[in-house]
Amino acid sequence: RYGEIELDPQVGLVTGLAWTQVGGEMLTIEGVMTHGKGKMTVTGNLKDVMKESITAAATYVRSRAVDFGIEPPKFDSHDIHVHVPEGATPKDGPSAGIGMATAIVSVMTGIPVRHDVAMTGEITLRGRVLPIGGLKEKLLAALRGGIKKVLIPEENVRDLSEVPDIVKEGLEIVPVKQMEDALKHALVEVPEPIEWDFEAYAASKKAEKGEGTGVVAH
Amino acid sequence: RYGEIELDPQVGLVTGLAWTQVGGEMLTIEGVMTHGKGKMTVTGNLKDVMKESITAAATYVRSRAVDFGIEPPKFDSHDIHVHVPEGATPKDGPSAGIGMATAIVSVMTGIPVRHDVAMTGEITLRGRVLPIGGLKEKLLAALRGGIKKVLIPEENVRDLSEVPDIVKEGLEIVPVKQMEDALKHALVEVPEPIEWDFEAYAASKKAEKGEGTGVVAH
Amino acid sequence: RYGEIELDPQVGLVTGLAWTQVGGEMLTIEGVMTHGKGKMTVTGNLKDVMKESITAAATYVRSRAVDFGIEPPKFDSHDIHVHVPEGATPKDGPSAGIGMATAIVSVMTGIPVRHDVAMTGEITLRGRVLPIGGLKEKLLAALRGGIKKVLIPEENVRDLSEVPDIVKEGLEIVPVKQMEDALKHALVEVPEPIEWDFEAYAASKKAEKGEGTGVVAH
Amino acid sequence: RYGEIELDPQVGLVTGLAWTQVGGEMLTIEGVMTHGKGKMTVTGNLKDVMKESITAAATYVRSRAVDFGIEPPKFDSHDIHVHVPEGATPKDGPSAGIGMATAIVSVMTGIPVRHDVAMTGEITLRGRVLPIGGLKEKLLAALRGGIKKVLIPEENVRDLSEVPDIVKEGLEIVPVKQMEDALKHALVEVPEPIEWDFEAYAASKKAEKGEGTGVVAH
Amino acid sequence: RYGEIELDPQVGLVTGLAWTQVGGEMLTIEGVMTHGKGKMTVTGNLKDVMKESITAAATYVRSRAVDFGIEPPKFDSHDIHVHVPEGATPKDGPSAGIGMATAIVSVMTGIPVRHDVAMTGEITLRGRVLPIGGLKEKLLAALRGGIKKVLIPEENVRDLSEVPDIVKEGLEIVPVKQMEDALKHALVEVPEPIEWDFEAYAASKKAEKGEGTGVVAH
Amino acid sequence: RYGEIELDPQVGLVTGLAWTQVGGEMLTIEGVMTHGKGKMTVTGNLKDVMKESITAAATYVRSRAVDFGIEPPKFDSHDIHVHVPEGATPKDGPSAGIGMATAIVSVMTGIPVRHDVAMTGEITLRGRVLPIGGLKEKLLAALRGGIKKVLIPEENVRDLSEVPDIVKEGLEIVPVKQMEDALKHALVEVPEPIEWDFEAYAASKKAEKGEGTGVVAH
Ligand SMILES: [Ca+2]
Ligand SMILES: [Ca+2]
Ligand SMILES: [Ca+2]
Ligand SMILES: [Ca+2]
Ligand SMILES: [Ca+2]
Ligand SMILES: [Ca+2]
Ligand SMILES: [Ca+2]
Ligand SMILES: [Ca+2]
Ligand SMILES: [Ca+2]
Ligand SMILES: [Ca+2]
Ligand SMILES: [Ca+2]
Ligand SMILES: [Ca+2]
Repeated sequence: RYGEIELDPQVGLVTGLAWTQVGGEMLTIEGVMTHGKGKMTVTGNLKDVMKESITAAATYVRSRAVDFGIEPPKFDSHDIHVHVPEGATPKDGPSAGIGMATAIVSVMTGIPVRHDVAMTGEITLRGRVLPIGGLKEKLLAALRGGIKKVLIPEENVRDLSEVPDIVKEGLEIVPVKQMEDALKHALVEVPEPIEWDFEAYAASKKAEKGEGTGVVAH
Repeated sequence: RYGEIELDPQVGLVTGLAWTQVGGEMLTIEGVMTHGKGKMTVTGNLKDVMKESITAAATYVRSRAVDFGIEPPKFDSHDIHVHVPEGATPKDGPSAGIGMATAIVSVMTGIPVRHDVAMTGEITLRGRVLPIGGLKEKLLAALRGGIKKVLIPEENVRDLSEVPDIVKEGLEIVPVKQMEDALKHALVEVPEPIEWDFEAYAASKKAEKGEGTGVVAH
Repeated sequence: RYGEIELDPQVGLVTGLAWTQVGGEMLTIEGVMTHGKGKMTVTGNLKDVMKESITAAATYVRSRAVDFGIEPPKFDSHDIHVHVPEGATPKDGPSAGIGMATAIVSVMTGIPVRHDVAMTGEITLRGRVLPIGGLKEKLLAALRGGIKKVLIPEENVRDLSEVPDIVKEGLEIVPVKQMEDALKHALVEVPEPIEWDFEAYAASKKAEKGEGTGVVAH
Repeated sequence: RYGEIELDPQVGLVTGLAWTQVGGEMLTIEGVMTHGKGKMTVTGNLKDVMKESITAAATYVRSRAVDFGIEPPKFDSHDIHVHVPEGATPKDGPSAGIGMATAIVSVMTGIPVRHDVAMTGEITLRGRVLPIGGLKEKLLAALRGGIKKVLIPEENVRDLSEVPDIVKEGLEIVPVKQMEDALKHALVEVPEPIEWDFEAYAASKKAEKGEGTGVVAH
Repeated sequence: RYGEIELDPQVGLVTGLAWTQVGGEMLTIEGVMTHGKGKMTVTGNLKDVMKESITAAATYVRSRAVDFGIEPPKFDSHDIHVHVPEGATPKDGPSAGIGMATAIVSVMTGIPVRHDVAMTGEITLRGRVLPIGGLKEKLLAALRGGIKKVLIPEENVRDLSEVPDIVKEGLEIVPVKQMEDALKHALVEVPEPIEWDFEAYAASKKAEKGEGTGVVAH
Repeated sequence: RYGEIELDPQVGLVTGLAWTQVGGEMLTIEGVMTHGKGKMTVTGNLKDVMKESITAAATYVRSRAVDFGIEPPKFDSHDIHVHVPEGATPKDGPSAGIGMATAIVSVMTGIPVRHDVAMTGEITLRGRVLPIGGLKEKLLAALRGGIKKVLIPEENVRDLSEVPDIVKEGLEIVPVKQMEDALKHALVEVPEPIEWDFEAYAASKKAEKGEGTGVVAH
């Protein structure tokens, strides 16, 4: 059934947790990267705050690209599409932020996301994980859905006292403070940083286009 | 009569199934490809969720292009227009997703769509087929319209118990889990994968434009 | 008087038929082509469904260009403006579709439209003519306006039984199923197909720009 | 006082006639041309129908450019701004159409507009002048404002019977059927047609850019 | 205090006069020019009519550039930002028009605006100054704010009879008919006209880009 | 806890002060710079007036770039994203202006912002600091949040009489009149001005592209 967890880790496929009027629910976040021109597309009946959380997640990933082993020009030569099925359900709020960032890092690095991990948390541009609402309902949904490990914002630890023991015993609950911590738990391997020299790259691009030769006579 | 099935398989012409307040209805989905610059146009009095389902279908096809034998640059040198007659009727919802993807694959590959097949199902970016509502009404509409085979989401099999026997006997009902399965039933032949080397292609484009020669003196 | 038919066939000037709360009315559709960059402008207090019917008509014409003797690059080197006087009256609905397509074919080919022909019908991307509402009122308006021949969708033939004999005797009523049939009746001469080789054309454009010479040394 | 006629003919300055809830009023239409890139700007608290009437007027002028002695590339190398003071008053309706066209012809040709002529009439893309409402109130406003000659749509001649004799005696009322007639009365001299060879022009532009020389070796 | 006049003339800083429900108020208009690409930005919680008055003012300045000593290409190589603090207050109406034009002329020429002058008046594209409302309240606000001289539209002179003597004695009130008159009073020095040859300039730009050499063999 | 101050100065991270219906609150402002094309992105559920305050802040920084040691072309080769967590809370008003400007100067110069300073004040394009509302509530929030020093608009000094002594004793309250004063207190070091020759820079860019050589034969 859709709404159950995947059988294997997949690139760009993340399980978020939503809090709706009828309780908690698992929220699939799908990222796909294609060759393109740096366009970002977001779909899935998303309202403004959730759309902005994807924008914030994308800036976080872009500003930290080399730490994740992503060559920065890759952002300009590829398009990213983030989609949140199911289209019939409107979705809002910032709490999918760390899931969005995980999906983007996964598609840009090609590292799959663990299929038994779910996560919830707002993200800042620097990757700080901010608290969310509806923790109890979200954890219940994760347990029902077969999730093994749930990443929650460190500031929500105080809310765990309201969560039934049976839920806390059935799930490994991991408080995270920074996005880097979330990625360590969510990705099947840790991205390796690269070195990048923006000036050398810019110079090589100019040479390629024949620029810079205007003053050289023959 | 319009609303009846075509007499022959046609490229880009797909029969979807809609669920309206007055029952089920056949929904023609028309795709057309012209030479262009990669623009996607959608018309037919479509509301936001149906528009987004076309965007999702397009990303699915683009990200899997080589598996369908489509050379990726074709997306940049052609425009695609997806239209859903009849213009006087507003249309919404995600359930035309697999029909949209079928129409796009058909116009990009030139492989016609079987004229006696109808389909319903939401599509994810990875081509997973998600369940839809109004199964009984949709199947009735297909039977009335002369359809022989209907593709439905696998997760909707549980809803078949509510469908009258006379409908189930008059139609071949095929549950599909992945878009690839839907395409096998919908297209008159299976698309053949190709190999594609993005780096070699990029290099050939640069040579064509005279780039890369700036450092070569004479 | 405006609202009466023209005295001579003109390029781009088509008589449609509208159905309003106060009865049927003749609807002038004006197309004009200028040198430009492929822009399409639509004016005349048109609401969304009528605007979309122009978009659909334009794709139909573009995808069938060579059948109408139109060199495809002409769409990129010219602008088309479709206007529907009278600006004070809001207009909507898909039934002007075949009139829109006729206007666009006329301006692109330079073939005038017969001034004593009126038409009504929704158009699909493949040029199929779909049924419309208000047939009786529209035919009455055509008769009052001095029209000799009216093109109607084949599927509306069943509605002719409700039309008074005096109207049916005063007009030549022609059911059309495909846009090509409509054009045969509406244009003063039938467009002649041309051959077009997209690859040869693309190659000639590249040669013109000096591309493709990068690998040729001297 | 503003609202009175100008003392001398000016380029781009046209007097239209509006019909408001409190009676008729003179409406100044200002056109200005600057060097630019073909942009059209419209301001003056104009609502959609009046904005569209400027678009229609501009297409009329562009499609007839050579008849008015305007070199067609001038539309791409200049911007036009049409403004209708007074900004505090919302303005709508299509009846300023022939005034808009007169303003655009005037700024593109540099021929001044007679300062004692006012005009009202909707314009079609082919320059046909369509009837307007509020004729009596508009003529009264023209008389009060010191206008000598008023151009009205030929189809409004039937409404002159409702206009008081004192108004008809104080004004020269000129019915016009085509925009060309309006221009003869409104401009201080008649524009002289030019010849224009689009293909020769395109070829000269290519030579200028060094295109077309790619195949010439040395 | 903000709301009081500046101590020295500054480039781009103009004092307008607004008329609100609670009386008249001084309105600071700030223009800033930066290197850029010809973009115009307007901020300050401005509603549509005030935004349009900035557009009209900008066209006036652009079309008269050489009269103010501004080289026309400067409009394409610089951005202009017009801002009206205080952001919490919505602002509308056309009466800041001559202030907007003064700010734009000041930033484009670098000539400071006198700090003890305030102004109110709608502007036309030709620089005519149209009458405004709330004259009495605006003059009172100017007096309270320490202004010495106020520029008002000539057509508002008739409204001075309603203004208390004490206000008229405390302020030098200058009626202006044309924007040029306003600039003479508002700027610390009068802009000097320049000559500009658009064709010579265009030719020099082409030579710079190496265009026009395509026909020169060697 | 989020909502508490950072432990160390960080680049682009500023503490503003908001005034809401439930009292004062600390408002984190996050700026991030990435390589790009000069795009400005703003997120965080910001309403129009707060968005405009970022635009005004950006123009202030751009127009004063060399005073802050920022090479002007840096604005065209980088993107800036300003985000205001927490996404669930709508935010409006101009009073974050000086915080926005501080964040932008910090990311453009790389100079960190002191972590124990908070600030509130509207900014003009020239960097003048305008008064704000809710001073008492904002200062209380700063004290609760562990802030040591608060920058307030000079014009708000008159409102300090309403602020309880305990608050005034617990905070260093610094009135600022100009943005430059705010930056001296907020940044860990004062930016050093540079010299910049726009004409020399433009000439070097042209040489790089091979422009200007068109007239040199060989
Ligand atoms: Ca669900
Ligand atoms: Ca939420
Ligand atoms: Ca139907
Ligand atoms: Ca649905
Ligand atoms: Ca009519
Ligand atoms: Ca209709
Ligand atoms: Ca008036
Ligand atoms: Ca009107
Ligand atoms: Ca104030
Ligand atoms: Ca006003
Ligand atoms: Ca908070
Ligand atoms: Ca505020």
